[in-house]
Amino acid sequence: MRGSFGQHFRLTIFGESHGDAIGMVIDGIPAGTPLDEAAIARDMARRAPGLDPTATSRKEPDRVRIVSGLFEGRATGTPLCGLIENTNTRSGDYAQLRAKMRPGHADYAGHVKYGGYNDPRGGGHFSGRITAPLVFAGAVARQLLAAKGIAIGAHIAAIGDIADDPLDPVCIRADALIRLQQSRFPLLNPAKEAPMRAAVEAAKADLDSVGGVIECAAVGVPAGIGSPFFGSVESVVSQLLFSVPAVKAVEFGDGMAIAQKRASDANDAMHYENGCVTCLTNHNGGVTGGITNGMPIVLRAAVKPTPSIARVQQTVDLMTAENTTLSIAGRHDPCIVPRAVVVIESALAIALCELMMDNASTRAMQ
Amino acid sequence: MRGSFGQHFRLTIFGESHGDAIGMVIDGIPAGTPLDEAAIARDMARRAPGLDPTATSRKEPDRVRIVSGLFEGRATGTPLCGLIENTNTRSGDYAQLRAKMRPGHADYAGHVKYGGYNDPRGGGHFSGRITAPLVFAGAVARQLLAAKGIAIGAHIAAIGDIADDPLDPVCIRADALIRLQQSRFPLLNPAKEAPMRAAVEAAKADLDSVGGVIECAAVGVPAGIGSPFFGSVESVVSQLLFSVPAVKAVEFGDGMAIAQKRASDANDAMHYENGCVTCLTNHNGGVTGGITNGMPIVLRAAVKPTPSIARVQQTVDLMTAENTTLSIAGRHDPCIVPRAVVVIESALAIALCELMMDNASTRAMQ
Amino acid sequence: MRGSFGQHFRLTIFGESHGDAIGMVIDGIPAGTPLDEAAIARDMARRAPGLDPTATSRKEPDRVRIVSGLFEGRATGTPLCGLIENTNTRSGDYAQLRAKMRPGHADYAGHVKYGGYNDPRGGGHFSGRITAPLVFAGAVARQLLAAKGIAIGAHIAAIGDIADDPLDPVCIRADALIRLQQSRFPLLNPAKEAPMRAAVEAAKADLDSVGGVIECAAVGVPAGIGSPFFGSVESVVSQLLFSVPAVKAVEFGDGMAIAQKRASDANDAMHYENGCVTCLTNHNGGVTGGITNGMPIVLRAAVKPTPSIARVQQTVDLMTAENTTLSIAGRHDPCIVPRAVVVIESALAIALCELMMDNASTRAMQ
Amino acid sequence: MRGSFGQHFRLTIFGESHGDAIGMVIDGIPAGTPLDEAAIARDMARRAPGLDPTATSRKEPDRVRIVSGLFEGRATGTPLCGLIENTNTRSGDYAQLRAKMRPGHADYAGHVKYGGYNDPRGGGHFSGRITAPLVFAGAVARQLLAAKGIAIGAHIAAIGDIADDPLDPVCIRADALIRLQQSRFPLLNPAKEAPMRAAVEAAKADLDSVGGVIECAAVGVPAGIGSPFFGSVESVVSQLLFSVPAVKAVEFGDGMAIAQKRASDANDAMHYENGCVTCLTNHNGGVTGGITNGMPIVLRAAVKPTPSIARVQQTVDLMTAENTTLSIAGRHDPCIVPRAVVVIESALAIALCELMMDNASTRAMQ
Repeated sequence: MRGSFGQHFRLTIFGESHGDAIGMVIDGIPAGTPLDEAAIARDMARRAPGLDPTATSRKEPDRVRIVSGLFEGRATGTPLCGLIENTNTRSGDYAQLRAKMRPGHADYAGHVKYGGYNDPRGGGHFSGRITAPLVFAGAVARQLLAAKGIAIGAHIAAIGDIADDPLDPVCIRADALIRLQQSRFPLLNPAKEAPMRAAVEAAKADLDSVGGVIECAAVGVPAGIGSPFFGSVESVVSQLLFSVPAVKAVEFGDGMAIAQKRASDANDAMHYENGCVTCLTNHNGGVTGGITNGMPIVLRAAVKPTPSIARVQQTVDLMTAENTTLSIAGRHDPCIVPRAVVVIESALAIALCELMMDNASTRAMQ
Repeated sequence: MRGSFGQHFRLTIFGESHGDAIGMVIDGIPAGTPLDEAAIARDMARRAPGLDPTATSRKEPDRVRIVSGLFEGRATGTPLCGLIENTNTRSGDYAQLRAKMRPGHADYAGHVKYGGYNDPRGGGHFSGRITAPLVFAGAVARQLLAAKGIAIGAHIAAIGDIADDPLDPVCIRADALIRLQQSRFPLLNPAKEAPMRAAVEAAKADLDSVGGVIECAAVGVPAGIGSPFFGSVESVVSQLLFSVPAVKAVEFGDGMAIAQKRASDANDAMHYENGCVTCLTNHNGGVTGGITNGMPIVLRAAVKPTPSIARVQQTVDLMTAENTTLSIAGRHDPCIVPRAVVVIESALAIALCELMMDNASTRAMQ
Repeated sequence: MRGSFGQHFRLTIFGESHGDAIGMVIDGIPAGTPLDEAAIARDMARRAPGLDPTATSRKEPDRVRIVSGLFEGRATGTPLCGLIENTNTRSGDYAQLRAKMRPGHADYAGHVKYGGYNDPRGGGHFSGRITAPLVFAGAVARQLLAAKGIAIGAHIAAIGDIADDPLDPVCIRADALIRLQQSRFPLLNPAKEAPMRAAVEAAKADLDSVGGVIECAAVGVPAGIGSPFFGSVESVVSQLLFSVPAVKAVEFGDGMAIAQKRASDANDAMHYENGCVTCLTNHNGGVTGGITNGMPIVLRAAVKPTPSIARVQQTVDLMTAENTTLSIAGRHDPCIVPRAVVVIESALAIALCELMMDNASTRAMQ
Repeated sequence: MRGSFGQHFRLTIFGESHGDAIGMVIDGIPAGTPLDEAAIARDMARRAPGLDPTATSRKEPDRVRIVSGLFEGRATGTPLCGLIENTNTRSGDYAQLRAKMRPGHADYAGHVKYGGYNDPRGGGHFSGRITAPLVFAGAVARQLLAAKGIAIGAHIAAIGDIADDPLDPVCIRADALIRLQQSRFPLLNPAKEAPMRAAVEAAKADLDSVGGVIECAAVGVPAGIGSPFFGSVESVVSQLLFSVPAVKAVEFGDGMAIAQKRASDANDAMHYENGCVTCLTNHNGGVTGGITNGMPIVLRAAVKPTPSIARVQQTVDLMTAENTTLSIAGRHDPCIVPRAVVVIESALAIALCELMMDNASTRAMQ
């Protein structure tokens, strides 16, 4: 709990937005795994700020210095620690925020939890910047999964009320998922880019921000991964997805919509196809009884609008114990959704590694 | 993972639907806690089958025999084990299902995971019956929480496309939540009961079943509970909610709808009220940055329609390796939602106990 | 921690000596594993009381009723719960002990920890009787290990100051270990049985008890199991050995004696034998750097004399808050060592299962 | 397991002897804890090489750069990461060792576990150098414990066959323990220093090394800490002690010697002293039934002789698959015991923090 995840693919993250450095330790990478650092850097760049008009103009190279666990290009099998120095910090922007609680942020909840001792600069450990270690870990997990034939990709399913076309949950192809990874604004229907960008611009112009939905899928996951109850695929994946700041809802398969259906329209009829068991539909998003059934895993995560906005907001001043107002200056994303795509993919990748390793430990004694 | 949850309020569940007995072990109940067994029995009865026309006619008293951890009516502080004997099992109904995979069920996923060795009778360990131990544990957790001034309750937010009124997320009262617990069909707007029951009856008449949504809240949870990232309130609660069979989506606060909003309509403005910090709205469902902010915790879980239906469904026969059809006889709930209400409440109660104990362990060394 | 052990071979134990029942849940047994219940019963009988003059005359059949996780003689892959009813409880013997703290027992430490709410009858959850679930779990673990060619056995290395011959740590044979299991008083040098029994009788005649040492070995464990630091073989095994009540010291290989040596006499020289790497000596007990090196694992555990003795002892009365004396009546083992042999073997078996499964989970992703 | 310890005081260590950096992440330090970095540096210096003739001449400043979790001198409550750069690495010394397995080291066991991909330079992750992060974590833990009135100290109980006087387990004083910490060669009987140093010099002159015993104690630990079975004080402490490379035996209280005793000489008689319950003796080392009883915690750990010696040793060459001989050049400690004293203290400090926090989490819900 807290800063660590997993029993097999063990991830520990650390760091504050404006501290010396952020980073992570991954314990459980098989010895001898060649790490493709260029591929990791590509994923880091997808999350990095300053590269798209929807994002904050703060620029961080987000280069990871691996200080342990790698020798001659391969994992040693012992804990891999990577560091990302914080090079571009303008703490002055945040001075007034120590007392004035930013609505929608963790400021007040964190103040109570940590008795006022948490690092207030730039959101401290609550900053979206701490998702960079998640992306690093996800990039490593993705390489392990790729060797097993598993591909993960995601698109912007919606920004505000502009929706992209949905993934066809039955016949998602690995190459299509990988192609999505190559875009800074991944969509299934390119015609949606212009109106989505317009929605972001409109919010920005109004000193506001806007939320969205990310749809993510994994293909190639064999049937039989996950466990009933506390180790269900949905349980483990959702634990990670809800670790991503700003995620407020998670759906698998038909998600909320399944509640309105009858079983005759929610059950996935099964049949043999080329000697393999498969489903004609995928209302369950590839998971039944908490276990993968061989169909693509499909999920959606709702991302709330970035709470840091320049608009005047009503809030409290803990120093004076009085009501006050707040207008948040500084560089903030008017829409975090495009940068969050790779974070959601990473969360799924980490969870799938953990789940596949969990299965393996039991099977080994058979 | 798998059959156990928690680092503080440690819960282990076991059992198969048609095995000898099901049950659970809870480790972490403070020594000396008086257990109100009548209150536990009331929660068990809310989940028990056979008591409402929406439910299966299978009758199980679901009486729990506590075999350890309780002495003279109080918790001893050592593991509490409770057993529920399986008294009413008609395995004959399920004979054909060993080969024929039931669509929407864990049959196929479980068959692959366990190599065909899982108990096939009545769904085995995948059965909704295994939520009875969750309810027991939830009832214990609820008593611990009540002593801290925390109340949990839930209502049927929707069955099919009939929606109840939503909870007002800002001013939920403990007594209202407790009143909801006393109904077998808890609603905020009683006028919705008739159309909801009609929707269930219609599905049943069509040899079908129907899903729904459960909305659940906790009040009295102090600010400062939970952690950023992997131990976020949403992460821990969702891990448990997605452990409940049939849950396919989980929302906190505005949930999926927050994605369509702007921050000015999603941030919860703060102000002082009687010297306390509070929020004017509760779009975040009582959680910001993974930590409680003192507002009511509000969540919704989508429950899929019971997959066991009498309608003819297309599926596979693993024995003959051929396509086939299946019509599921036996006693099944045309709508599981009313019985699942207490299960959702229980999941939230267990998660909150875990989270509160996690906070305490750190604070102790301050 | 507390009542549960392991991340892979998950064991949860529960119960009090004079409660309704004691038992355990094991999660992680591979589906399809045939369980040899007769072999389990043989191990249970080795620990059971009433069968040897060194032991208490309390008779408990210690028959295990498996209520879940087993179907048609094979593990289902889901949690296996076994129950042992407490049939022979004479609580009257212990009435005075609620106030009078028994020296050498957990009475006082437990009283403080649990605020006086722990079950005082017969030692409650502290009773040596709670090692019965460990033996059950060990018997299951042993079957999994046997399928991998691993055998475990132990002998009484000493009772009081009478020592058995030591195991030759270099060339222990599986059949010799298995032969040891068949004896109620396992020794390498049968001539030591008479003086050891005489030492026990002498202690009993003096209303006293006597301690001893158990030496345990595992052969067939492949090199490469375990991890540096917190998951070292010694760390995991010792965690379990020190869980066994009365164990106060644990040694691997040369143990305490290695401290007096020079490296030239403590390092194990290596050489090729029939194409395999092996060691000429085994001062390290089969473990270097926390990882198995292919040599037999050899360890010793010191077992303190049963603290319950009929002699008058000086102690405190918590009710009157005065000093007092105590003479413990009831049926107690004048020497627990012979019955503890199978418990020590079980602890090693459980630890090795856990360690082997841990290795496997990482390898699976290679 | 593996690189992480604890559920409350969560420690993750990383690094290889000759990699870029080593370090640790600690999660669970209470927010607001002032960290005395000078005191931490003092403990680091006690372990650091190059400062005593018994130690290797390799000099490493072992200065820790804290990159997260600390703000304005106080813990933020989020993960604290500290880095120790490796500044003084002479990898050339170790070139031949990639093929030739050093007896007594983890070389062969590690080679099998990691398939030859572990970092071979200077022992890699197996190096005693990786105890530096343990000492850092122990120094932090010690500060938390000191605030609760707990002091920890240790002395060199033996080097080779020269023994120091033992601690009096009944009346150890905090100030005496703290005084021991101030010595590079802590002894109770200063007259033993000369013969001990002579034993080390003699071993060195013989191109050999020598082992020893460290005795460690904690005073001020309240009664009631720890749990029966898997979370026993001995279980948790021994898990950490056996994580320290070279430890091959661990004793609590009378340890191995208790096996030769009768209960009348092993039970600790209790009495009231100034209204408090205490014991007249401390054969159990402050722990009964896995739980502290308020007496000093006393333990001993046997440390094997440093396996790296200049003497010719028989071993295998994995490249040629032939038998060979090996003489280990480079800078090595002829006796690691003096430097290991602070490591053993640190292991105990970390374990006690974990155990005290574990107790607190349960009590919080009472």
